[in-house]
Amino acid sequence: AFGLVDIDAEGQRFVSRIVGHPLLGPIKLAGDPMKLEDVRLLSPILPSKVVCIGKNYADHVAEMKDITGESTEEPVVFLKPSTAVTGPGDPVFHPAISERVDYEGELAIVIGRLCREVPPERAKDVIFGYTCANDVTARDLQKKDKQWTRGKGFDSFCPLGPWIETGLSLEEAADLRVTTTVDGEVRQDGRTSDFIHGIPELISYVSSFMTLVPGDVILTGTPAGVGPVQVGQQMTVSIERIGELTNRVVTRD
Amino acid sequence: AFGLVDIDAEGQRFVSRIVGHPLLGPIKLAGDPMKLEDVRLLSPILPSKVVCIGKNYADHVAEMKDITGESTEEPVVFLKPSTAVTGPGDPVFHPAISERVDYEGELAIVIGRLCREVPPERAKDVIFGYTCANDVTARDLQKKDKQWTRGKGFDSFCPLGPWIETGLSLEEAADLRVTTTVDGEVRQDGRTSDFIHGIPELISYVSSFMTLVPGDVILTGTPAGVGPVQVGQQMTVSIERIGELTNRVVTRD
Repeated sequence: AFGLVDIDAEGQRFVSRIVGHPLLGPIKLAGDPMKLEDVRLLSPILPSKVVCIGKNYADHVAEMKDITGESTEEPVVFLKPSTAVTGPGDPVFHPAISERVDYEGELAIVIGRLCREVPPERAKDVIFGYTCANDVTARDLQKKDKQWTRGKGFDSFCPLGPWIETGLSLEEAADLRVTTTVDGEVRQDGRTSDFIHGIPELISYVSSFMTLVPGDVILTGTPAGVGPVQVGQQMTVSIERIGELTNRVVTRD
Repeated sequence: AFGLVDIDAEGQRFVSRIVGHPLLGPIKLAGDPMKLEDVRLLSPILPSKVVCIGKNYADHVAEMKDITGESTEEPVVFLKPSTAVTGPGDPVFHPAISERVDYEGELAIVIGRLCREVPPERAKDVIFGYTCANDVTARDLQKKDKQWTRGKGFDSFCPLGPWIETGLSLEEAADLRVTTTVDGEVRQDGRTSDFIHGIPELISYVSSFMTLVPGDVILTGTPAGVGPVQVGQQMTVSIERIGELTNRVVTRD
């Protein structure tokens, strides 16, 4: 079920159940609100498409040059399969076949309307909200395969959450701190104001060649500082004014 | 709605309406059968994932070397977005931004069961059937972008159909003639027996890193002879014992 996460007068987060699908009509709540800590959050959306942007922070382009080449005029776009999506607190499975699995903390845009060929100035009209994403990547397979589908497509390689923040303006979303920690140690620390291609341009570019449907997610690229995680370690993507997305790396069995 | 296409005693094809979703339980028919020519067929499936295989015929690998490089030990895997899927007889839109749009006729496998890490010898258990596919490609953008998502991901760039053939054994599917014509002229003429990676190996490989769900489609790669189509031309992918998939190239306007 879907739920609405809000903050009460004492500053405590609570969850109210949403009747039906929040993207398919006005939101109607049902039942008594529950304390957030009594609820297990799943991925806030099961997207039809997970569209990802590569090379959207100059400092990350520089650190990745030997794997992904020079920066390009247009955004690099790739897809993760919907089966890669997982929720906050869920395990990320380290494939036995990979010798290097990396975190990549990113701001994710959740699309709210069916749209195609969106001009940048209309982009704000098609955004439902924002969440945190971790574009988990088997770096060795990404490099070996050339096409990034396998390296970035394993089950559980796309944690999303903890919820969708619907209260941010485009201007606010364009200047948020994005950090990733591993076992509490800061590894990535960027700002969305450092994007090479801003949110309106990304939506315009992606929708210039594929129709977007409600619930589709666009991952906006990762800042510098990507690196490996080991089995047992905990990754946390934190985005200012949105929340924290934490997942532990485990073996499949 | 879904329908069952069958052949009557006089050799005429007819369509019976299927109640509900054919992948979600035993098939139940309803109403009177209709003549096939009185029915408009849509894409036989709206897949959650369209998984595509590159470089699966040696003669095609050779002709594409300057764009896609040498052959590789493992299959090349990429994704088309679900919004690229279109049906038999539907238009394929030629993007204004591309100067070369190519047909690529292919056998498509439709998955019937939720599965992961399928051993090759179990692959036949997860196949629902087979259909024809056209992996339409903006060749210039594929080459320019390196990642193939945009070049292969435009709306309408994945015609599927005309129906799903569920009566073929794995052995039969492994030796089918695949031809593509443009305005009736043969451009591609291959056999699935020439696959570098056979159907069981493809299902095993793809499911080794992503869970497949019922209705997911795997495009098995294209034989030699790919080439451009112009606005107004008609592409037909024909696969022996399955059927013909015809689409005309048009401008969006």
